[in-house]
Amino acid sequence: MDPKNNLKRLISQMDDSYDGALITPGSNLYYLTGLNPKNVLERLFSVIVYPDKKPVLIIPKLYEDYIEQSSIDFENIYVWGDDQDPYKYLEKALKDLKGCNKNLLIEDSMSADVLMKIKDLLGKYSWSSLNSETSRFRKIKSKEEVRHMKKAAEIADHTFEALLEEQLIGKTEIELASHIDLLLKEFGASDTSFETMVASGPNSANPHHFPSKRRLKEKDIVIFDYGAKYKGYCSDISRTVAIKKAPEGSKKVYDIVKSALSKSKEIVKAGIEARHIDKQARDVIVDEGFGENFKHRVGHGIGLDAHEEPYLTGENREKIKKGMTFTIEPGIYLKGRYGIRIEDDIYTMEKEGKSLTKSDREFICL
Amino acid sequence: MDPKNNLKRLISQMDDSYDGALITPGSNLYYLTGLNPKNVLERLFSVIVYPDKKPVLIIPKLYEDYIEQSSIDFENIYVWGDDQDPYKYLEKALKDLKGCNKNLLIEDSMSADVLMKIKDLLGKYSWSSLNSETSRFRKIKSKEEVRHMKKAAEIADHTFEALLEEQLIGKTEIELASHIDLLLKEFGASDTSFETMVASGPNSANPHHFPSKRRLKEKDIVIFDYGAKYKGYCSDISRTVAIKKAPEGSKKVYDIVKSALSKSKEIVKAGIEARHIDKQARDVIVDEGFGENFKHRVGHGIGLDAHEEPYLTGENREKIKKGMTFTIEPGIYLKGRYGIRIEDDIYTMEKEGKSLTKSDREFICL
Repeated sequence: MDPKNNLKRLISQMDDSYDGALITPGSNLYYLTGLNPKNVLERLFSVIVYPDKKPVLIIPKLYEDYIEQSSIDFENIYVWGDDQDPYKYLEKALKDLKGCNKNLLIEDSMSADVLMKIKDLLGKYSWSSLNSETSRFRKIKSKEEVRHMKKAAEIADHTFEALLEEQLIGKTEIELASHIDLLLKEFGASDTSFETMVASGPNSANPHHFPSKRRLKEKDIVIFDYGAKYKGYCSDISRTVAIKKAPEGSKKVYDIVKSALSKSKEIVKAGIEARHIDKQARDVIVDEGFGENFKHRVGHGIGLDAHEEPYLTGENREKIKKGMTFTIEPGIYLKGRYGIRIEDDIYTMEKEGKSLTKSDREFICL
Repeated sequence: MDPKNNLKRLISQMDDSYDGALITPGSNLYYLTGLNPKNVLERLFSVIVYPDKKPVLIIPKLYEDYIEQSSIDFENIYVWGDDQDPYKYLEKALKDLKGCNKNLLIEDSMSADVLMKIKDLLGKYSWSSLNSETSRFRKIKSKEEVRHMKKAAEIADHTFEALLEEQLIGKTEIELASHIDLLLKEFGASDTSFETMVASGPNSANPHHFPSKRRLKEKDIVIFDYGAKYKGYCSDISRTVAIKKAPEGSKKVYDIVKSALSKSKEIVKAGIEARHIDKQARDVIVDEGFGENFKHRVGHGIGLDAHEEPYLTGENREKIKKGMTFTIEPGIYLKGRYGIRIEDDIYTMEKEGKSLTKSDREFICL
C-alpha cells in the first residue's frame, strides 16, 4: 500500500468537484496517509486535504508518536494538549479550503459529534461521502493488497486448523473466542478484523450471537466466525462443526449451505452483477425450502474494512470487477435448534473467483 | 436503570426547545430505551423520539430479536431486510417531527455516513448534541447506577488480585491482555469497557500503548489498564507493578504518582471545580520536576461510557456535583525507560470522594 500514491489519486479526482476533504481515523486515513491510530475516542485527530496544497494534520499530544507512521509531507502539523482547544486549529485549516465548488468530502465514519461542532465553520459547503470517492479505487485491489489479504486469510486458515486439534467440549464460547484471538495473533495477525463469534448449540441459530458462558457439549453445532488483520487488510471466515455427534438432519442442512456456497462461487467472474451472486446462493436454499431461514445478504466487500463495498444483496446491480474482494457466506438458521454458515473470502479474476480462505469445507464432527 | 423513566425525562426537557431526537446505537440508546445492540455497523438501527407521541424504532431484520430488550411502548416498529431501503422508513418517521422549534437532537456517536444520507431530509432543522441534554442527568448517578459501577469496579479489583497470583515473567503483553479479558468475564463482566492495555518495559512509557508480542522480563515496569462492564456500566483501573526488581529510581517516581493520586482524591467533594482536581495532581508532579512527563488530563467521567463528562482537564471550570463519577489517573512517562500510572474510579459524595476501585496501591514487586 502506497499512501502517497493513494492521496495523489484522491487529489486528482478532487480537483474537479471538491474543495477539500476532512478525514478522521479509520481505513481512509490509513489508506491515504499511513496513519492508523487506534481508539482515539473523543480526542480530535484529523487530516485536512486540499486539492492545491499539502495537507494539514491535527493530532492530540498523546498520539504524537504516530506522526512517524506517515510518509506524507504535511504543510502543517498542529499538536494539541489536553488543555487546548483543537477546534481552533481545525478552523484555521478549514479557512484554507479552495472554496470554488463549495463541496467537501467528509470521512463517513466521523462521529456526528465532530460534525456538529464544526457545522457552522462548514456553513457554505455541501458535504459528500469520502468513501464514495475512495471506494472507487479501494474496491479494486492491487497485487500487493491481494498479497496482504491472502496472508490474512492464511492466518485465519491456520487458526481453524489449530482449533481442530483442541479439546473443545466443556469450554465456554467466551474461552474459545479468546483462544481464537490469541491464535490469530500468534499466527501473525496485528489484530482481529472484528469481534470473534463462537455460537454453540441453539446460539448458532442467531446470526449475530455474541460469545456467552455456554459450555460446548456433545451434539452441539458450533459456528466460528472470525478474521485476521494483516498490514491493515482483513480476512473473514466462518466454519461450522458438530461436536461428537451431528444433530438429526444437520448433515442435510450443512450440504445445502455448502452447495449454495459452491454454486455462487462458480458464477463469480468480472462483469457479473452483485445481486446475481446473492441470487445463485439463495435459489439453492429456497429450492430446498429454507428460504425464510437465510436471513441476510450473501456477502460483503472486504479489504481495509471488514465490511465495505460492494455489498452482495439481492438488489445491488453493481458489476463486479476484476480485483474486487468480497465474502460469500450463505447460512441457514433454525431458531431454537441450530444454525449453519460457511464463509469464504473471494478474489475476482477475469474468468473466475478465487477463494483466499481455504479451510476444510466438509462437515467435520469433532 | 429505568429506560422508561429516562426517556420521560428527556422528553420533558425536549418539549421546550426540540422537535425530536434521532438516536442510533450507543449508551444513549441503552439509557433511553434499554436497546443495546452490538456491532451493528453499516445497517441502520435507529429510534426517533417525539415530544408529543410515542417513539418509532427502525431495526434490521437480523437484529429483530433485540426488540424484547426494550420496555418502551413504540408507536411503530419498522423491521427491514437486507434487500430493503431503511431510509424510506426513516423519512416516514421524520415527517412526524413536531417542526415548531426547528431543532433536533442528534446522537453524538452517529456516523457521518448516516447524517449525510439524511441531511436533505433534515433540511430545515438545526442539530443539537443529544449528549449535551442526556449528560445533564446521566452525569449524576442514581444509587442503582452506583451499585452497578461498584460491582464493575469489584470485578476489576478481583481481576488484579488474580493476576498477582500468576506467573507473569515470560508471557507476552498480548497473552496477558487476553488473560485479563477472560478473568474479567469470569468474575462477571458482560464485556470489557475498552481495549485492555498491558505495557511492559519501555512500552509503559507510551500512555496509549497497545499490547505487543514483547515478553515480560525481570526489571520490567508493567502498567495494566483495563475495565469491566456490568449491566452496561464501566469501571476503569490502572495499576503499575515491577517484575522481580524495580528499575533504579522507579520507586521514587511511583511514590510521586501515588501521592498525586491521593492528594487529588483528598480534595474531591461536591462543589469543587473539575480543573482543581487536575491541578492538585499536577502540582505534586510539577513540584518534583516531572511536569513534562505527565502528558494527559488527570481523568474523565465514567458511567455507561468509559469516557464521558465531566472531563478533568486543567481548563474545565465545571463544578463537580454529588453523584458524579470519574477517574483520577496521574502518570509519569519517561521515554525509552518506563511509565507509571495509578488510576481509581471515584464517586463524589457531599464532603468527599470515594474510591470504587480498591486494589492495592503500594508499589508491588512480583
